[in-house]
Amino acid sequence: MTGCLNDVGEERDVIDSWGWSLFTGCVRALAEALRPSEIESAARMKRKGSVSEDVEFTFTPLVILELAKDTPEETTEWLLQKIKDGKHLSGAHLSIRPLEENSKVYVIGASWRRLLLGAESLGFIKEFQDGSMRVFTYNNREDYKHFTDDDSDFLTMAEKQYIIKRELENLRAVNETMVPGHPQAKLYPGKSIFRRLQTSGILIQLYPLHEPAELKKLSFIWYRQVKFSFQPLDEIQKYFGQSIVLYFAFLEYFTFALFPMAVIGVPYYIFAWEDYDKYIVFATFNLVWSTIVLEVWKRWCSRLSYKWGTLTMKREFEEPRPGFHGTLGVNPATGRKEPVYPSYRRQLRIYLVSVPFVCFSLYICIVVMMIYFGMEDLVLAYNEEAQSMFSSSLLYLPSVVYALVIEIMNRIYRYAATFLTSWENHRLESSYQNHLVLKVLVFNFVNCFASLFYIAFILQDMKLLRQNLAALLITSQIINQFVESLFPYCLQKHRKKIIKQKLSISTEEKELPLTDQVKLEGKMDTFLGTFDDYLELFQQFGYVSLFSCVYPLAAILAVLNNITEVFSDALKMCRVFKRPFSQPGSDIGVWLLAFETMGVISVMTNCALIGMSPQVKSFFQGKSIELVLLIVAVEHVLLGLKFILAFAISDIPRDIRNKVARLEFESMEALKQKQMKEADESLKKEQQKMK
Amino acid sequence: MTGCLNDVGEERDVIDSWGWSLFTGCVRALAEALRPSEIESAARMKRKGSVSEDVEFTFTPLVILELAKDTPEETTEWLLQKIKDGKHLSGAHLSIRPLEENSKVYVIGASWRRLLLGAESLGFIKEFQDGSMRVFTYNNREDYKHFTDDDSDFLTMAEKQYIIKRELENLRAVNETMVPGHPQAKLYPGKSIFRRLQTSGILIQLYPLHEPAELKKLSFIWYRQVKFSFQPLDEIQKYFGQSIVLYFAFLEYFTFALFPMAVIGVPYYIFAWEDYDKYIVFATFNLVWSTIVLEVWKRWCSRLSYKWGTLTMKREFEEPRPGFHGTLGVNPATGRKEPVYPSYRRQLRIYLVSVPFVCFSLYICIVVMMIYFGMEDLVLAYNEEAQSMFSSSLLYLPSVVYALVIEIMNRIYRYAATFLTSWENHRLESSYQNHLVLKVLVFNFVNCFASLFYIAFILQDMKLLRQNLAALLITSQIINQFVESLFPYCLQKHRKKIIKQKLSISTEEKELPLTDQVKLEGKMDTFLGTFDDYLELFQQFGYVSLFSCVYPLAAILAVLNNITEVFSDALKMCRVFKRPFSQPGSDIGVWLLAFETMGVISVMTNCALIGMSPQVKSFFQGKSIELVLLIVAVEHVLLGLKFILAFAISDIPRDIRNKVARLEFESMEALKQKQMKEADESLKKEQQKMK
Repeated sequence: MTGCLNDVGEERDVIDSWGWSLFTGCVRALAEALRPSEIESAARMKRKGSVSEDVEFTFTPLVILELAKDTPEETTEWLLQKIKDGKHLSGAHLSIRPLEENSKVYVIGASWRRLLLGAESLGFIKEFQDGSMRVFTYNNREDYKHFTDDDSDFLTMAEKQYIIKRELENLRAVNETMVPGHPQAKLYPGKSIFRRLQTSGILIQLYPLHEPAELKKLSFIWYRQVKFSFQPLDEIQKYFGQSIVLYFAFLEYFTFALFPMAVIGVPYYIFAWEDYDKYIVFATFNLVWSTIVLEVWKRWCSRLSYKWGTLTMKREFEEPRPGFHGTLGVNPATGRKEPVYPSYRRQLRIYLVSVPFVCFSLYICIVVMMIYFGMEDLVLAYNEEAQSMFSSSLLYLPSVVYALVIEIMNRIYRYAATFLTSWENHRLESSYQNHLVLKVLVFNFVNCFASLFYIAFILQDMKLLRQNLAALLITSQIINQFVESLFPYCLQKHRKKIIKQKLSISTEEKELPLTDQVKLEGKMDTFLGTFDDYLELFQQFGYVSLFSCVYPLAAILAVLNNITEVFSDALKMCRVFKRPFSQPGSDIGVWLLAFETMGVISVMTNCALIGMSPQVKSFFQGKSIELVLLIVAVEHVLLGLKFILAFAISDIPRDIRNKVARLEFESMEALKQKQMKEADESLKKEQQKMK
Repeated sequence: MTGCLNDVGEERDVIDSWGWSLFTGCVRALAEALRPSEIESAARMKRKGSVSEDVEFTFTPLVILELAKDTPEETTEWLLQKIKDGKHLSGAHLSIRPLEENSKVYVIGASWRRLLLGAESLGFIKEFQDGSMRVFTYNNREDYKHFTDDDSDFLTMAEKQYIIKRELENLRAVNETMVPGHPQAKLYPGKSIFRRLQTSGILIQLYPLHEPAELKKLSFIWYRQVKFSFQPLDEIQKYFGQSIVLYFAFLEYFTFALFPMAVIGVPYYIFAWEDYDKYIVFATFNLVWSTIVLEVWKRWCSRLSYKWGTLTMKREFEEPRPGFHGTLGVNPATGRKEPVYPSYRRQLRIYLVSVPFVCFSLYICIVVMMIYFGMEDLVLAYNEEAQSMFSSSLLYLPSVVYALVIEIMNRIYRYAATFLTSWENHRLESSYQNHLVLKVLVFNFVNCFASLFYIAFILQDMKLLRQNLAALLITSQIINQFVESLFPYCLQKHRKKIIKQKLSISTEEKELPLTDQVKLEGKMDTFLGTFDDYLELFQQFGYVSLFSCVYPLAAILAVLNNITEVFSDALKMCRVFKRPFSQPGSDIGVWLLAFETMGVISVMTNCALIGMSPQVKSFFQGKSIELVLLIVAVEHVLLGLKFILAFAISDIPRDIRNKVARLEFESMEALKQKQMKEADESLKKEQQKMK
C-alpha cells in the first residue's frame, strides 16, 4: 500500500480511470489516441466488445432509474453510454435497459464479475474460509466462505444494489462542460454526474427494486407469525442493510433493557411505595442500569457489526451533499474540483440566523406551556364550581390538548429545522445531519419536557407531574404509531388498489411482471431514514428516565409500545415504502451521544426529585441545607460512578478485539514482507545495472 | 496490503525471516537445506559475505551492549552470531564489535542500507519532496527531502539507535530451547531473545551513546545561554526522541498558559479584592481558561507530532513486558507463543490486595493529616501563651514539617505502588503504566490535597488554607528541584571526577576516545522516564486550580518554578543520565486525562469556595438554601460549558486534518488501482489458460 502511495501523486487527476476491461492495454491506448469527436465511434466499438460480456450473464434487474419525461434524446443517449462504458472510458461499466419501448424508466444490472470488482473497490468485508472477517479481494475470491463463481448469494441483493448506487454516484465528468442537451446543467472535470442530474431535475428518482419472494419470506418470519421471538436480524440486514437493521436491533435491545425497570416499577406503582429509602433504591437502580445498558449496547452493537463486516470497514471519502453550492475550488484532500463555500459565511448563518431562530422557537414553547397552565387553572376552577361528571372529565382535556399541540409543534419545527439546516449549506451529509439532529433534539427536549420540569421544580406538584407524564407519554405513543405507520399503510394500500385497477391487475397477490412491479414501486413513498424513529425512542427514554421515581409505570408502557412499534415499523419498511438503498454503518452514531446525555440529565432530575419528596423533607426537618448538600453529594457520586462505569466497560468485547487485532497484525506483517521483497528486487536491479 | 493479507496465514511462524541480503535466493535455499548442526559453517560463509558489505560503510558506534562479566564464551558467541546473521537466518543483521580485547562490552552499529530498511519496517514517517509527511519506503528513498545516499542526517542518531533497539528486541528464538551456556534460561520458538537475556541477568545493560559534539550544541541553545526564548524543540526531538520532547513542550506550553492566570492573580493578591463579584470573575476565568488551555494543547500537540511524523504512525504490536510471567500459550493476535496469565487471577490480585492496600495508604494519609492538625493546635496554643519571636516563628513549623512528610510519603508509596503493580503481572507495558499511574495519582491527590480540603470545607478557615497552600506549594517545589536535578547533578559530577581520575583523563572538556566515553556513560544513572516530571506538574496544577480563588498568587509561583524547572530538567537530561532510547509517541497519554479530571474537580471546589466566602454569605443573609442551590446551578452550568467547549474545539487543527485526509485518500486510491490491476492480470492469465 505504502509502496504505491508515492506513485499516485501525479495521477490523481485520472482517478477512476482504472482500466480493467478485457482489452485494457489496447483499448486504453486507443482511447488516448482518439479525439473527443471520435469517441462516439470508439464507444460503438466498445459496445460490441462489451455485449459479448453482457451476453454471458443473465440480466437481473437491480436498480431502477427514472428520468424526467421531457429529457432530450441527446441527454439520454449520452447518459446511457456513460453508464455502459468501461472504466478506461470513465464509464460505470454497468448494464442498462429501458423498461419498455420509449419509456424514460430504465433497469440497471451488472455482470457478476463487475459486482465482485465493485465489492472489492468499496472495501466490503466478507467471511473467510477460516471464519475470520477479511477485506474482500477479487483475486482471492475462491477463499471466501459461500463463494461460487456463478451469480450466487455471496453478495446479497442489497449489497449489489449498493454497489450499483456507488458506481453511479462515482460517475464523473471528464471534459464535459455541461450535460448534453441541458446547457444550464454545468459540469466540470471531476464533478459527479448523478449529483448534477439530481440537482437539475433530470433525474427523477433512483431506487433499488424489491424482491417479492424474499420480502414475503422476510415479512413472514419478521412480523406475520404471532409468536414471541427475537427479530430475524441477519435476514433484515441482508434485505435492508446495516443502518436500518441497527435501528431495529437497538429498538429490540432497548425494549429488553427496559424489562427490569418495568418489572421493578410495577410494585412501586401498585403499593404506592413512597418511603424515601425505597425511592432511592429505585432511582439508583434506574440510573446505574441505564448506564450499564448503554455500555452493553456498544458491545452488542460492535459484535453485530463485526458479524456483518462493517466494524472494521474503512469509511469512504464523503462527496459534497447534493444541495451544497459554492464557487468552484479544489478539495484539499482529494485534489478534485468541487464547490467551495467559506466556513465563516456558514458560521455567520448559523450564529446570526439559526441560533436566534432556535431560541425564538424555545421561547414559543415556553409561551405555549404557560397557556397550558392557564387552561389547567381554568378547568380546575370550573370543576370545583360545577362538580359534575362533565367537568371532572374536562380535567384531562388540557393535558391531552397540550400533548397534541406539542406533537404538532414538533412536526412544524422539524420542517423549519430541515429548511434552515440546508440553507446553512453544509458540505457533507454527515455534518448536515449532525446540525439537524442537534437543532431538533434541543427543541424536542424543551418542547416535550419543559412543562414537566416546570411542574416538578417550580410548582412542585407531584400528582400533577404524574398525571402529565402519563398523558404526554400515552398521547405521543398513540400519535406516533398512527401517523408513522398505520395511516401511511392504509394510504398505500388504497393507492396500490387504484394503480392495480388502472393496470388491470387482479388484486390477488402473485408474482407480477417486472414492468408492473416497477410501476407499483415507483409510486410508493420514499423512506426518509431512521431519524424520526430514533427521535421517538429518545423522547420515550426521556419520559422513562427523567422522572422515573415519580411514575414507575412509564417503563412498562414503553415496553408495551415498543413491542407494537417493532411490528408497525416492520410493516412500514416492508409494505409502505420503496426499498431504501442499504447504507453501511457500524453504530447508531450521534444518537448514542444523545441517549448518554439524557442519562446524565436524568441523574440530576432524579436526585432533585428525591430531595423534594415530602417524605425525605420531613425526615430532614429543619436541616434543609444538610439535605440539599447531601443530595448534591449523592448526585456527584452517581455522576462519577457513571463516568467510571462508562470508562471501565470496554466498548468492544475481548474476543472481537482479538480477532480484529489478529487481522491487523497479519496485514502489518504482510506489508513488511512485501516491502522487504520490493527493496530486495530493486537492489538486484541496481546491481545488474552496475555490472 | 490486503492482497498479501491472505498469503500470510501459514507463514506466521517464519515471521521476521524476510531474507533481504545480497544473496537472498541462494543463501535462503542453502539455509533451508542445511541441518542445525551445519548452521555454524553456513554462518561462517555468511560472515565472509557480510564482511564485504560491512567494509563498505564506516562503522559508527550507536548502541552499547554490556553482558555480565561471567557470561560463558558459548553464550557470547551465539549471541554475537545472532546479531550479525542476516534476516534469512533469523538474525538482526547488525554489526557488533567488542569495545576492547576480552571485554564483555560491545559496540553495535549498522550499515546505512540496513538502517533505512529498519526505518521502513518500523513505519517511520518522513517529509516528502512536496512537503507532505509520508511513510518511508526504501524503494522511493530518493523522493524524500534531505535524503542522500551516503550516511546522512536523513535519520537522526536517536532514530538509528531506536531502530537498533527494536531490531534487537525483535530477535526471536527459532529452534533453540535455551540460551546456549545457560540451561536455566529457557527459550521457545518466537520468544524474544533479549527479553530472556534481560530477565536471566545475562544482559546487564543496553544503552545508546551520547554524541558529545551534538550534546554540547544542544545544551548551549537549550539552557546555557541566558536569554528569554522558546526551547529548541526540534533539536531536542532530534536528540532525545518524541516522548521526552513532548514533556518539555508540555512544560513550556503549560508555563505560558499559566501566564494570564498569574498576571490576573497579582492585583487580586495585592489589593485583597474579596468582593464576591470579583471573586466569581476570577474563578470563572480560571475554569474556562484551564479548559481552553487543555483543548488548545491537544491541537498544538497534534501539530508537533505531525511535524515529527508520529501523529499518523501506526502503533506496533506490543511485546509482553520483561517481568511478565505465566504458562506458555499462544497470543490470539500474533499467533506467537508467549506466556499466558489468566485475567481473573490478575483481577483477584488487584481487587484483593492492591485496592485494599491503596485504601489503607489513604487511611494513613488521613491519620497523618489529623496529627498535623493536632500539632497546629499545639503550636497556636503555645504562641498565644508565649507571644515571643520564637513562638511566632514556630507557627510555620507544622506546615513545613507536614509538607516534608507528604513528600516523603509520596516517595515511599511510589516504591510500594511500583512493586504491587509489577506483582499484578500485567502483560503489556502500557497497561502496567496505566495501573501504576492510577495508583500513584489517587494517593498523591489525597496525600497532597486532603489537608487543604479539610481546612477549606470542614474547618472553613480561609486564612489557614491560604497559609497551607503557600507552604505546600513552595516546599514541594524546592524539594523537587533539589532532589530531582541539583542533587543528582552534583553526585554525577563528583562521580565523573573520580572515574576520570581513575582513567587518568584530564578533567578539561575535550573529545574523549570511545572506550573512555563508554566507560563514563556506563556508570551514569539510567533515566526512568518522565513519570515523576508529569506527576510534579499535575500536583502543581492542583495547587493552582483547586483553590485558585483563595490564593491567586499560586499561578505566579508556578510560573517562576516552571521557568527554573525547564533549566534543571534540561541539565538533568543532558548531564546526569545515560542517554535514553527515543520513544515514539503522539501525545502525553494518560496524563492529559489526569489534568482534565483535575479541571473538573476544580470547578466543584471553586464553586464551593465562592459559596462559602463570608462576603457571598452575607449577601445571601438568611437565604442560605437559595445560595446553595444557586452555587450548584452555577457549578452545573460551568461543567456543562466545559464539556461543550471540549466537544466543540476540534483536537486536530484543520490544516493538519486536511493533510492527513489527503494522504489517506491517496493511499486508498492507490490501493484501488493496485487491486484493479491485479484483478486484470489474473483475468488475463485465466484467459490465456483457456486458450
